[in-house]
Amino acid sequence: MDFRVRAATKEDCKDISRMIMELAVYEKMPDQVEISHKELERDGFCQNPFFECLVAEVPEDATRTERFTVVGYALYFYTYSTWRGRAVYLEDLYVMPAFRGKGIGKGLLCKVAEVGRKKECVRLQLSVLDWNTPSRDFYAAKGAQDLTASEGWHFIRFDGQNLDKLANEAPKD
Amino acid sequence: MDFRVRAATKEDCKDISRMIMELAVYEKMPDQVEISHKELERDGFCQNPFFECLVAEVPEDATRTERFTVVGYALYFYTYSTWRGRAVYLEDLYVMPAFRGKGIGKGLLCKVAEVGRKKECVRLQLSVLDWNTPSRDFYAAKGAQDLTASEGWHFIRFDGQNLDKLANEAPKD
Repeated sequence: MDFRVRAATKEDCKDISRMIMELAVYEKMPDQVEISHKELERDGFCQNPFFECLVAEVPEDATRTERFTVVGYALYFYTYSTWRGRAVYLEDLYVMPAFRGKGIGKGLLCKVAEVGRKKECVRLQLSVLDWNTPSRDFYAAKGAQDLTASEGWHFIRFDGQNLDKLANEAPKD
Repeated sequence: MDFRVRAATKEDCKDISRMIMELAVYEKMPDQVEISHKELERDGFCQNPFFECLVAEVPEDATRTERFTVVGYALYFYTYSTWRGRAVYLEDLYVMPAFRGKGIGKGLLCKVAEVGRKKECVRLQLSVLDWNTPSRDFYAAKGAQDLTASEGWHFIRFDGQNLDKLANEAPKD
């Protein structure tokens, strides 16, 4: 199938927002989604954006609905390893079910790797759910390491009241 | 003990670099450290920095060696959740052994939370090694969730030749 990958624009945020929800449904956590295209527009297309995004699109006549030509996205940002330096983190990689198995997901992943390489990133990182075997296999087949399995890294999070409490207890300047 | 937390400057990078190595030794992976103060200066103190850093310092007469007044650091950057929006990620939190148990680590953590809150971040995230019980207990006591344990998130990484291979296979523009 013909497809192309390009940098997302502000005008893509409604499509991206729709696909973020589709991905959350797949990950069985749709109630976790609390942001809309407005926050994406504000946070991704400002002077110091919090993320960058690529979209995959197909020619209109190949889509089922003819309403959407954007059929996938990869949202990422830059992180930093104090051991190795610059890295790129792939927050979301998604291709609509009807368009899977055609190399679009791999195309998005490879493009993020290329973008990261241009910024001298030495790592591309991401996270997957343990039951998500298709995704784990997809990444493993391309040479990814599972650091939770091999080195024992765990994700830790503060949010809500626990985060407020920390912030309120910060030492005064 | 009197201590203060302040934003790191370029001049702190040698101290930070020394403590990065101390932390890696504690984490039993000293051979993983490949960057020096030069990369920290370049990547943290440029126009669009890849990270921000706080340092904790104590008055000179309270230090053992009198050579260092900087005794701890917290290195962090901003990330993005497509479900919740802006987040801050604490890459490293370290206090030199002789200065532990005096609230300095908590002071650094709380300050990162405060800085994140000012940027409208709704999460503070980090990762710990499964055998690192002191750190896991430290964060859990302050209300952190272990998402690897509760939701099953695994860390995945591409680097070296595997990352090069991906980048080389990116679709052409």
